[in-house]
Amino acid sequence: MKKRIVLLPGDGIGKEVMNSAKEVLTAIAEEYNHSFSFETHEIGGAAIDQYGTPLPETTVDACKQADAVLLGAVGGPKWDNNPSHLRPERGLLGIRKALDLYANLRPIKGFKNLLPASPLKEEVVSGSDLLIVRELTGGIYFGSPSERRENGQVVVDTLSYTRQEIERIIDKAFQAAQGRRGRLTSVDKANVLESSKMWREIVEEKKAQYPDVAVEHLLVDAAAMKLITNPSHFDVIVTENMFGDILSDEASVLTGSLGMLPSASLNEAGVGLYEPVHGSAPDIAGKGIANPTAMILSAALMLRYSFGLEDEAKIIEDAVQSVLDAGYHTADLRIAGGFQVGTAEMTKLIVDYI
Amino acid sequence: MKKRIVLLPGDGIGKEVMNSAKEVLTAIAEEYNHSFSFETHEIGGAAIDQYGTPLPETTVDACKQADAVLLGAVGGPKWDNNPSHLRPERGLLGIRKALDLYANLRPIKGFKNLLPASPLKEEVVSGSDLLIVRELTGGIYFGSPSERRENGQVVVDTLSYTRQEIERIIDKAFQAAQGRRGRLTSVDKANVLESSKMWREIVEEKKAQYPDVAVEHLLVDAAAMKLITNPSHFDVIVTENMFGDILSDEASVLTGSLGMLPSASLNEAGVGLYEPVHGSAPDIAGKGIANPTAMILSAALMLRYSFGLEDEAKIIEDAVQSVLDAGYHTADLRIAGGFQVGTAEMTKLIVDYI
Ligand SMILES: CC(C)[C@H](C(=O)O)[C@@H](O)C(=O)O
Ligand SMILES: CC(C)[C@H](C(=O)O)[C@@H](O)C(=O)O
Repeated sequence: MKKRIVLLPGDGIGKEVMNSAKEVLTAIAEEYNHSFSFETHEIGGAAIDQYGTPLPETTVDACKQADAVLLGAVGGPKWDNNPSHLRPERGLLGIRKALDLYANLRPIKGFKNLLPASPLKEEVVSGSDLLIVRELTGGIYFGSPSERRENGQVVVDTLSYTRQEIERIIDKAFQAAQGRRGRLTSVDKANVLESSKMWREIVEEKKAQYPDVAVEHLLVDAAAMKLITNPSHFDVIVTENMFGDILSDEASVLTGSLGMLPSASLNEAGVGLYEPVHGSAPDIAGKGIANPTAMILSAALMLRYSFGLEDEAKIIEDAVQSVLDAGYHTADLRIAGGFQVGTAEMTKLIVDYI
Repeated sequence: MKKRIVLLPGDGIGKEVMNSAKEVLTAIAEEYNHSFSFETHEIGGAAIDQYGTPLPETTVDACKQADAVLLGAVGGPKWDNNPSHLRPERGLLGIRKALDLYANLRPIKGFKNLLPASPLKEEVVSGSDLLIVRELTGGIYFGSPSERRENGQVVVDTLSYTRQEIERIIDKAFQAAQGRRGRLTSVDKANVLESSKMWREIVEEKKAQYPDVAVEHLLVDAAAMKLITNPSHFDVIVTENMFGDILSDEASVLTGSLGMLPSASLNEAGVGLYEPVHGSAPDIAGKGIANPTAMILSAALMLRYSFGLEDEAKIIEDAVQSVLDAGYHTADLRIAGGFQVGTAEMTKLIVDYI
């Protein structure tokens, strides 16, 4: 298989973990006889420094022509006081919109060895294995007007969705549930928001098309509680952009393995952008101690979702599990005992397994 | 002291726990020589059944003339399929707006005896003692337009705030922090929302007026994580209506004592509405097993915030603590050992202490 992959390392540890992903993909290509070509472009703070914008045209164009995109992380204190349009996260929002990456998938599954690092009691968190499907290109993130009025005395943001935008993400979530344990929790605030009422109606309309999926509706406040009190209740959760931002970050700390969590953002053509859930961690950037696993597992998701290479995805996931089982871990994973290693060594261990 | 208190028991266990609060307040009145008069009115489902609306005029009028309002809980399956304007929670939203109850205060503090019932590890949650200050009458809950457009192909909700609405809640939060440990965390999504940018600016403007308070800003997604990984980091959290809804419910399950949590909703005149954080629990309504503590502690907040009766508030809080220390608890508190009691007995124990 021949594929063009665009790498957007971004800022901070993004650059370091991207190297790891590239090494792992190169190993996979050799082992399974694929041809992956890599092209690196700038985004976020690095792009601001070099091109004066967080999302240069050349980056967008390259991504549009690629078969898939890997992204490291964006942001850092250097750009924190920039005006809005010159902030690193604008690059992230911009590329999501430019590629129409409406479906953000975040699988969260506890690694047995890491559960001791979870803030939750082991009996509460053990067995949790959930997938959050977040709408990523609509809602209050992109609605207009979003402005000051009356001389700065009033401010307005707009949460807006088209029916078609809601339908496609809900279809995506139903399909994801079919490929998993067949349970879908739709999260909204239908007792307050008109958009949530429409969201709930569309879920109700669609469910006849997926008779093998059991659906429930949950209010966002109740979901925020239940994620903590009973995370293993959930299989697939689907929700709109802002609720998804909050709930997926909340869920990401449940299993004690934030440094291990990948994500996929897909469009209708199946082109995807894959990135770790963690940020650019400027405090540890350049020290060679960053955990490359979330980035590497994001590359595995790319193989699975964008290229349909299930075996190759699986072997990466197995490699990570077995390296962990052997007691190796990076500094961020608060595990007692075992062997603490840096980014390069962790990567080598995973590559060796492959 | 002579005070007129309006009781809005509402639905489900609301009626039962309201009786408990009334008994406790009657005991306080006798002991401390106050005269509290009680007037009961309907809200929520009960009001729909009796008057065809979740918030009758007579209820609003009575609340406007009262010195304070106690509310039980609203809602239940009976009204779940009603059209929006005939749903119990409309009564709640309506009374908040009618009384201009812009400041919702939710103190969350672990009871030592209940920590074993927390989903969090004891070392993570112990020592947490935080206050969430949620803006309650603005934002996306009340902004317009909130409607379908283009024949139902588009839906829009509006998050809107006036500068003055943001200023008053931020002032309230700074003042609350002054009366506590002097730390304020303002939560927003300033990297995406214009309203959050203005919110953050106003916090920055105000902080000079409160030099004794240390302020930090946190993005809502980061806050959703940190509440779980490090709840004792927080003293006072201030945030807008929808973020406050989600984060305060998230925070409410951290200490294992949801059945113990009170809340206060205040307006500029200091008239307040006090209610438990828990809901109407239709599944256990009428069985005499509901935990009255959150309602009773809400009455204590009323004595403190609306009437300035600190001693009286404190003795109620001490009573609850000592009854718990003696090993008594209701069925909802998952404690091993001790004595499980019903609503009436729990109330009597608290009254006896007073
Ligand atoms: C950086 C920020 C704009 C972004 C978001 O809110 O979507 C981030 O939090 C995420 O979840 O990817
Ligand atoms: C019932 C509902 C409208 C309400 C809200 O969202 O404000 C409730 O969740 C609360 O927090 O008091």
